[in-house]
Amino acid sequence: MIIVLKPDTSKRDEQAVMREIKKLGYKPHVMRGVERVVIGAIGDERTHANLETLTTWPQVERVMPVQKRFKLVSREAHKGNSTITLLNGTVIGGKRFVVMAGPCSVESEKQLLTTAHAVAEAGATVLRGGAFKPRTSPYEFQGLGEKGLKLLAKARRETGLAIITELLSEQHADMVADYADILQIGARNAQNFQLLIAAAKTGKPVLLKRGLSMKIEEWLLAGEYVLANNNANLMFCERGIRTFETYTRNTLDLSTIPIIKKESHCPIVIDPSQGAGRADLVAAMCKGAVAMGADSLLIVVHPNPAEAWSDGAQQVSLELFAKLMEELKPFIAAAGRE
Amino acid sequence: MIIVLKPDTSKRDEQAVMREIKKLGYKPHVMRGVERVVIGAIGDERTHANLETLTTWPQVERVMPVQKRFKLVSREAHKGNSTITLLNGTVIGGKRFVVMAGPCSVESEKQLLTTAHAVAEAGATVLRGGAFKPRTSPYEFQGLGEKGLKLLAKARRETGLAIITELLSEQHADMVADYADILQIGARNAQNFQLLIAAAKTGKPVLLKRGLSMKIEEWLLAGEYVLANNNANLMFCERGIRTFETYTRNTLDLSTIPIIKKESHCPIVIDPSQGAGRADLVAAMCKGAVAMGADSLLIVVHPNPAEAWSDGAQQVSLELFAKLMEELKPFIAAAGRE
Amino acid sequence: MIIVLKPDTSKRDEQAVMREIKKLGYKPHVMRGVERVVIGAIGDERTHANLETLTTWPQVERVMPVQKRFKLVSREAHKGNSTITLLNGTVIGGKRFVVMAGPCSVESEKQLLTTAHAVAEAGATVLRGGAFKPRTSPYEFQGLGEKGLKLLAKARRETGLAIITELLSEQHADMVADYADILQIGARNAQNFQLLIAAAKTGKPVLLKRGLSMKIEEWLLAGEYVLANNNANLMFCERGIRTFETYTRNTLDLSTIPIIKKESHCPIVIDPSQGAGRADLVAAMCKGAVAMGADSLLIVVHPNPAEAWSDGAQQVSLELFAKLMEELKPFIAAAGRE
Amino acid sequence: MIIVLKPDTSKRDEQAVMREIKKLGYKPHVMRGVERVVIGAIGDERTHANLETLTTWPQVERVMPVQKRFKLVSREAHKGNSTITLLNGTVIGGKRFVVMAGPCSVESEKQLLTTAHAVAEAGATVLRGGAFKPRTSPYEFQGLGEKGLKLLAKARRETGLAIITELLSEQHADMVADYADILQIGARNAQNFQLLIAAAKTGKPVLLKRGLSMKIEEWLLAGEYVLANNNANLMFCERGIRTFETYTRNTLDLSTIPIIKKESHCPIVIDPSQGAGRADLVAAMCKGAVAMGADSLLIVVHPNPAEAWSDGAQQVSLELFAKLMEELKPFIAAAGRE
Repeated sequence: MIIVLKPDTSKRDEQAVMREIKKLGYKPHVMRGVERVVIGAIGDERTHANLETLTTWPQVERVMPVQKRFKLVSREAHKGNSTITLLNGTVIGGKRFVVMAGPCSVESEKQLLTTAHAVAEAGATVLRGGAFKPRTSPYEFQGLGEKGLKLLAKARRETGLAIITELLSEQHADMVADYADILQIGARNAQNFQLLIAAAKTGKPVLLKRGLSMKIEEWLLAGEYVLANNNANLMFCERGIRTFETYTRNTLDLSTIPIIKKESHCPIVIDPSQGAGRADLVAAMCKGAVAMGADSLLIVVHPNPAEAWSDGAQQVSLELFAKLMEELKPFIAAAGRE
Repeated sequence: MIIVLKPDTSKRDEQAVMREIKKLGYKPHVMRGVERVVIGAIGDERTHANLETLTTWPQVERVMPVQKRFKLVSREAHKGNSTITLLNGTVIGGKRFVVMAGPCSVESEKQLLTTAHAVAEAGATVLRGGAFKPRTSPYEFQGLGEKGLKLLAKARRETGLAIITELLSEQHADMVADYADILQIGARNAQNFQLLIAAAKTGKPVLLKRGLSMKIEEWLLAGEYVLANNNANLMFCERGIRTFETYTRNTLDLSTIPIIKKESHCPIVIDPSQGAGRADLVAAMCKGAVAMGADSLLIVVHPNPAEAWSDGAQQVSLELFAKLMEELKPFIAAAGRE
Repeated sequence: MIIVLKPDTSKRDEQAVMREIKKLGYKPHVMRGVERVVIGAIGDERTHANLETLTTWPQVERVMPVQKRFKLVSREAHKGNSTITLLNGTVIGGKRFVVMAGPCSVESEKQLLTTAHAVAEAGATVLRGGAFKPRTSPYEFQGLGEKGLKLLAKARRETGLAIITELLSEQHADMVADYADILQIGARNAQNFQLLIAAAKTGKPVLLKRGLSMKIEEWLLAGEYVLANNNANLMFCERGIRTFETYTRNTLDLSTIPIIKKESHCPIVIDPSQGAGRADLVAAMCKGAVAMGADSLLIVVHPNPAEAWSDGAQQVSLELFAKLMEELKPFIAAAGRE
Repeated sequence: MIIVLKPDTSKRDEQAVMREIKKLGYKPHVMRGVERVVIGAIGDERTHANLETLTTWPQVERVMPVQKRFKLVSREAHKGNSTITLLNGTVIGGKRFVVMAGPCSVESEKQLLTTAHAVAEAGATVLRGGAFKPRTSPYEFQGLGEKGLKLLAKARRETGLAIITELLSEQHADMVADYADILQIGARNAQNFQLLIAAAKTGKPVLLKRGLSMKIEEWLLAGEYVLANNNANLMFCERGIRTFETYTRNTLDLSTIPIIKKESHCPIVIDPSQGAGRADLVAAMCKGAVAMGADSLLIVVHPNPAEAWSDGAQQVSLELFAKLMEELKPFIAAAGRE
């Protein structure tokens, strides 16, 4: 930690800060600048008390951490790229680009199976579909629950696709893990740490969406909860952040691709559907994500978007999805992927 | 709902929209403007399918909802101001201004009881203190758990203060409700709907903090989950939103006071400590909140802020708290409160 | 400046950083932590080259400035509160609370004089009114220009009110200064440094609105342009920042009051009308601003808001303004003002 | 415009709204919904008074515009893609992808000519370089002024590159236009409408950067100021918006590429250097921009980034630039460009 004292701090007030730093287990180191005194507190910031409390002291102007707070998810902890292998052989984070696709909500057997067959044929290897849905209003459709999970399992048997579905409640962790190949933690629960721990403990791969106003460091630290609970199969998923712009539902922050690749060894997935909230922007977003080095896309697809039970505006039709998969090919090749 | 068609939409494409509107249970009503055709879809937007899916249609430019989506929390549902009466006689939302105060985390019996006696003496009637703490990093102090709750209960017996503490997990709902007078739902869980439902079902009053990037409508709808689960004792708590500004930890949005008073009958509480993240700004924030018509303040107080186990920078000392309570008096009087 | 090196940086790469620091005129000072090496660069950051360029070096993890970048506007440069005295005797920043009020745009002699007499009678001492209007669309009313300035001068002669009006163009600086007592720099021009310099050079007091997404440090630095051009009569005006919230037009950041008071000696004015964008929230905002220690309010008032030529939704009627002035009295007293 | 009345509005209050709508030149059209009355006001919203003032009326809940406010920049005004041809033959917005590159500031003849030759050789056809620099602090390097412009002209003569440079002041418009092929309006001046008009009137092509917190509609309307002043050679340039994220200097919003292409006929340029504020993210951003359909890139390049006089952290070295140009080729081909 670096502690910056105010100009004209007395020797006595400086000494008091020094004593406190020692008391909290750090070794102080003084630097006298032209206007201000700066004290370095030497010691591991992750195992000692946080010195930010010193900002309440009148003689202290600022306290600046030096270390990164995340460990296990960091590139320093694991130099190579981590890969996650699913039961159907799909490898996320490897040379082969992975597409996950499916409806926002599981609505019916027909809707799901139609979609599953279509996306499998177009080249997707993972099927997405929500059985438990977090809805802004209590009066909106909340998902089919376990019945939806059973339909997902049926779609897997029929198509060979792996299954990704959202975990909403600690109390469902075992049940959802029984059906799913990947547990999705949604944006609204991205800092619901109890849920992250419950998900990690199932042993299933976890896809962690970025919260609507989550800084990248907070996102990495939320992921740290998964690895710290003995589950190494974590992937990050950018799905747009909340900004002042209202043209799109969220602002998809594609810069997270090179940043996560730089800071972490875990795969990065892009969800362009939530990001834009508009199906007509999805194709361009997908191309950008591929070009920038994403490992995978998570695309919302529906046989009849206009009649979807949730988030119709962002769902791509089966025809558009097949066309999009074709259009992505040269970009996947240009990015050095298969 | 209002559906705006693109300029030069053909009669046939217009008819298709009309048919879909009817199919989804609304009655269409056409208005021809100078450039665009606008269709009103008449029907209760909360009980019919959402027409926003129409935005995926090529001939549709925009879909605009007309109704407000929240019901039970709305001022229209209940014209007067709701009040919440706690077991120790404290009434939140009434003529008397209420102060809730206490440490960020319960750390020890001595720390808690010292604080409790001091804040009670200065005029607070509710004691805050976290036993389960949501922490950005898994390596930070996570709270004393049930031991912390027992200390809070002891402080209540000794001082007569009511207790407010955070509920972090559905699985703790009954246990926390056994000890607490008010269940606090934190900002990170503000759209953890399963937790909101679990809190509502305990029957205890619920204080719902605004999420870091939650729009006011979403906050009201999250509150709707509490009332819709048969718990009328809901209060909203503004604690700052996330913006681009980094001088303060969050931007305390005091405009929520007149807005919540206008849109809802539920009490509004202001948390200036989380809002500013800096103890030196808390006093001014409190005065502003009182003047603008808040029902209550939730202030973080610690006997020795510099040694607090969490969020020291925002904790006010016991001396400053007593001084602040004095300073607030003329503003409380000016606001027509006691 | 503090330069943090990456873990495992070689001695040679460390030496290269040291050489560069010396070359740019600083004296390097090394601190060896448990994981990282930190180098303090000692020297005045405002007169030497910026070391942030070092972040492009592969061995550098982060560069953190230590000094504040603003000087003349800072509380350190001038311990007391600066006051600004206008020709009609109004003192901004003193013991007496100042109210500035008037229409968004000057529309006609009748509209302006009616408003001027009404606000003067209710207790305002400065008249606001735009003669040059920055409008989002080129098809909206752009102001009466010099004709509007002449009407403002006439209103001053008739009522004794001082005049504040917006300066939009460097080329108008002398003309606008001939008529106005205070030059207002609008939010959209808050970092139009050429305009700030032109305004400063007229010698007239300058009111600098905060830009829509301006950090407090940037605002202080924009103010520094005025003082650095030999004009000490600067006041800051908070008028709301842009956030994700859409209920209000902007989010009025009242925490700027204690912050500007802490960091600077210049007066702080609050504009609740632009901040909320809704007349029904203005009264509460004004009370909060007074309670938190603002020096002055800038309120948009119109004889008939529904027929205003610009921004009608945020303009308060003459009757509401008179009522508001009465309601503010106890809060002004509670804040220790007159 | 659509005017939504509050539930339970009396017939009399409804009539009053109808009268006002007529008075302001619109034709009212009533729709009675299940809970609310909605009134459509038929007429051209761009040539009549703005009905948003009605939101100040107590019986009015909301006023919603129906029309888009921009005309000349819109895709509806011009179905094809506009192209801009520079004197050296470069066409922006056509089949050939255009790269603009050069230093943040012009510092010296040697620095500029070295860079110009290098970027020309690597394939750029436009040279960027700031002669007048808008700096957050008055104590930072403000540019070489006209001397810088002369150096740019010299570089053009030697290399055949076209020149783009920033216009900071209305008073420099003619001088800067004498030297430049494209006038750049920077983010801080994006709503400095007087400057936009001055730039338009020179007749030179204008590149309009997006303001830090500018909504897309506002950006299009700012562009409308250029076209409405008889200058059709406008291009938009996304350079990142301000959000809560601090890892990057700004958040580059690549979704603007498909959005500008959908809403407007003007070319779209991406500035990844300002967007990221970090040279190590520039390559990925460029690839994403190409894949998503941008017409051009504006890249900050410097012979020795660590010694740049401004914004060193975001400047790419000559070697990295040449490498990047090679890496972009397969993505340019995949995007169907040359």
